[in-house]
Amino acid sequence: MLKGRHLIEPRDFSLEELDEIFALAEDIIKNEKDYLDKCRGKLLASLFYEPSTRTRFSFESAMYRLGGQVVGFSEAASSSVSKGESVADTIKTIACYSDIAVMRHPKEGAPLLASQNTDMPIINAGDGGHQHPTQTLTDLLTIRILKKDLSNHTIGLCGDLKFGRTVHSLVKAMKRYLNINFVFISPEELQIPDYIKDDLQENSYYETESLDEVIDKLDILYMTRVQKERFFNEEDYVRLKDSYILTNEKLKNSKEDLIIMHPLPRVNEIAVEVDRDKRAVYFDQAKFGMYVRMALILKLLGVE
Amino acid sequence: MLKGRHLIEPRDFSLEELDEIFALAEDIIKNEKDYLDKCRGKLLASLFYEPSTRTRFSFESAMYRLGGQVVGFSEAASSSVSKGESVADTIKTIACYSDIAVMRHPKEGAPLLASQNTDMPIINAGDGGHQHPTQTLTDLLTIRILKKDLSNHTIGLCGDLKFGRTVHSLVKAMKRYLNINFVFISPEELQIPDYIKDDLQENSYYETESLDEVIDKLDILYMTRVQKERFFNEEDYVRLKDSYILTNEKLKNSKEDLIIMHPLPRVNEIAVEVDRDKRAVYFDQAKFGMYVRMALILKLLGVE
Amino acid sequence: MLKGRHLIEPRDFSLEELDEIFALAEDIIKNEKDYLDKCRGKLLASLFYEPSTRTRFSFESAMYRLGGQVVGFSEAASSSVSKGESVADTIKTIACYSDIAVMRHPKEGAPLLASQNTDMPIINAGDGGHQHPTQTLTDLLTIRILKKDLSNHTIGLCGDLKFGRTVHSLVKAMKRYLNINFVFISPEELQIPDYIKDDLQENSYYETESLDEVIDKLDILYMTRVQKERFFNEEDYVRLKDSYILTNEKLKNSKEDLIIMHPLPRVNEIAVEVDRDKRAVYFDQAKFGMYVRMALILKLLGVE
Repeated sequence: MLKGRHLIEPRDFSLEELDEIFALAEDIIKNEKDYLDKCRGKLLASLFYEPSTRTRFSFESAMYRLGGQVVGFSEAASSSVSKGESVADTIKTIACYSDIAVMRHPKEGAPLLASQNTDMPIINAGDGGHQHPTQTLTDLLTIRILKKDLSNHTIGLCGDLKFGRTVHSLVKAMKRYLNINFVFISPEELQIPDYIKDDLQENSYYETESLDEVIDKLDILYMTRVQKERFFNEEDYVRLKDSYILTNEKLKNSKEDLIIMHPLPRVNEIAVEVDRDKRAVYFDQAKFGMYVRMALILKLLGVE
Repeated sequence: MLKGRHLIEPRDFSLEELDEIFALAEDIIKNEKDYLDKCRGKLLASLFYEPSTRTRFSFESAMYRLGGQVVGFSEAASSSVSKGESVADTIKTIACYSDIAVMRHPKEGAPLLASQNTDMPIINAGDGGHQHPTQTLTDLLTIRILKKDLSNHTIGLCGDLKFGRTVHSLVKAMKRYLNINFVFISPEELQIPDYIKDDLQENSYYETESLDEVIDKLDILYMTRVQKERFFNEEDYVRLKDSYILTNEKLKNSKEDLIIMHPLPRVNEIAVEVDRDKRAVYFDQAKFGMYVRMALILKLLGVE
Repeated sequence: MLKGRHLIEPRDFSLEELDEIFALAEDIIKNEKDYLDKCRGKLLASLFYEPSTRTRFSFESAMYRLGGQVVGFSEAASSSVSKGESVADTIKTIACYSDIAVMRHPKEGAPLLASQNTDMPIINAGDGGHQHPTQTLTDLLTIRILKKDLSNHTIGLCGDLKFGRTVHSLVKAMKRYLNINFVFISPEELQIPDYIKDDLQENSYYETESLDEVIDKLDILYMTRVQKERFFNEEDYVRLKDSYILTNEKLKNSKEDLIIMHPLPRVNEIAVEVDRDKRAVYFDQAKFGMYVRMALILKLLGVE
């Protein structure tokens, strides 16, 4: 039963509950018109304490496409934060007006704190570098739809595996499914942290610095950004970044039914030429993100 | 007849007109579903020249819950103010697109000026330290619903009574009802101004520095913030503020049917432990604020 | 066929296509209630990379009055631009959520670039000092409705004719109609550029520094701002600006059926006293701007 629940961490929901959400998302995609009025009279509070056009648009569009409405702010400056009110009081007040809230906050734990002070469902849309659970739902739905199943895949994760919360969450989520092989592709400086690996079965992952070495074995390639500010010096950055830019050339030996994912925004880690390859699914992924948020809103509101 | 009128000052409406609004608000609370489409096709312009999440959310939620729509801005920076246009021209233009407008403005008199330049109903949502009439409507509705009547009460007002416009407006509004006793509780430095007292009958108010002295006599306790920046020095502030922080301890001798109100946001003038006391009604008050704004919008638009 | 098209420059549409839009706008004005649900379930992305309350309100009101919804931002700061994403990627992502987009951008060509990267209709709402085609549509609809016809007029354009993109676009648009005489009224320093005149037939325009000289001959007077920052020194500005401020006195000899237009916002180039003259139509013009945008949205979405 998801009605009235919060979503703060990707693993707040059981596999069965995730299945419920994904099945609903798939039905919305098939029968979008049937959902046009489902949230009539319902109000989503869209609380973005730091800007994130992409995530905000995705949530707000989701609510609008269900016939609901949105009140919100898109940066802390235009909110009453400046008056020194606690997150607890803010959420208690907003719960007077709204039926469900989505919160992005620069401070880790803010959405959790909010959820502890209200019965209104709270969805974490990113708290600092910590959690961003609806990105993980998006990634899972994309794999489920495009690869038919969430089990039995070799998934390559490429780029900055050290700092990228998206990757960490996805690994933790995917290891709950059967027969998943992880291939971690990154420069030495940006390897996946030990505490993530410690959680995996020993023969279920493989680490490499070379995308070329493993590209032919992948069912899924999940690209992430290599951010300049992660490096100590410019030379290291320049030397390394090119190895992790995906091009048509690099894709030469890859499988026919590979899917190439990316959480977006991309800077230059996937060459624009790749967009035209039918295996490039990152914009579809963005669209699935909206649908999974529609399903999530419906479930948490208990709207049938 | 409220259709087409503006609300600039709390006393723009007669007691009868207020009654009309409160009765409608009570009906909305009872039969909210009946109002879901009342403002279909109507547009509220939400003009916040300075940020106020709370008030803005309350108005916008009110309009959405009536099936209407909202266009607006939440700070002057993202408006065309910078182009040097007069408030008169701005409102004339906005009246081309909208059916009703709510305006918060840092300058006293800006909403009045706007109302003099258009037939579209204008609601003042706060102009500088001057007026904030829908807060007063909120306070009155809260008392009317929770105390069954707006007459025959002993109401304590506690905190900064010198600068708080909310308190000034509430006193002026309450004195129009029968048999109201005011108890002004504040440090000497923050006493209620003479011009407010001069307006009251001599035996209808009492001044004290001690909340403890009077707490057992109150039917209503209206708390306000003691703002640090009102004091000349830190010591005075530290010495005084604690006397005006409401705790469970301080409530020991109070009446069973007391109601504790606060316009919010609170900083620390009510201890969080008090929230669990059933007499603490400040979050209900916030909710009544949305309903009274729904009623106000309906009346000014002349929607039945 | 306008369905699926973009509007980047005023002349993207043929005269026949403009006629189609204007005819629809006129029908909306007459039968507004019939259009209340036309865009139900449709989403407009309102992408304002620089603030423009007036234009933004006009577009968003247009969408709301058609029963559609809006997601958007009103300044670049609260968007993800800061993350270094290209306009192409931004628009591809937004197209995942929305059905149509309107874009204002400080950089010339940004809306064009966007339109080249998506099948979603893009409307240019101003790119730098370059193009602002819906202002031109607004001006044309105003003339068509208030003067019954877009041909056979003497139109005076007064003020800063050198830098005003609105004027340049209007001249280019009006010269497509029959028997239009242009009268360019400006200080020498702010004369209309040669490349605009070169495009006109020699005997179809007249230049003067004096509004008084020509006021009695005009069917339409289009006023624009004389911006202080266009002048090298304060003296020149002070000397010149007064000649180009419209007053009741200056209108003494004008035609009975003259219409006085202005793209707004006005600063002081039209005295407020003129507003009460029935020939002053600039606020009607703003209202027509909303209706022409309603028609445009319907046509580009292919909604009947």
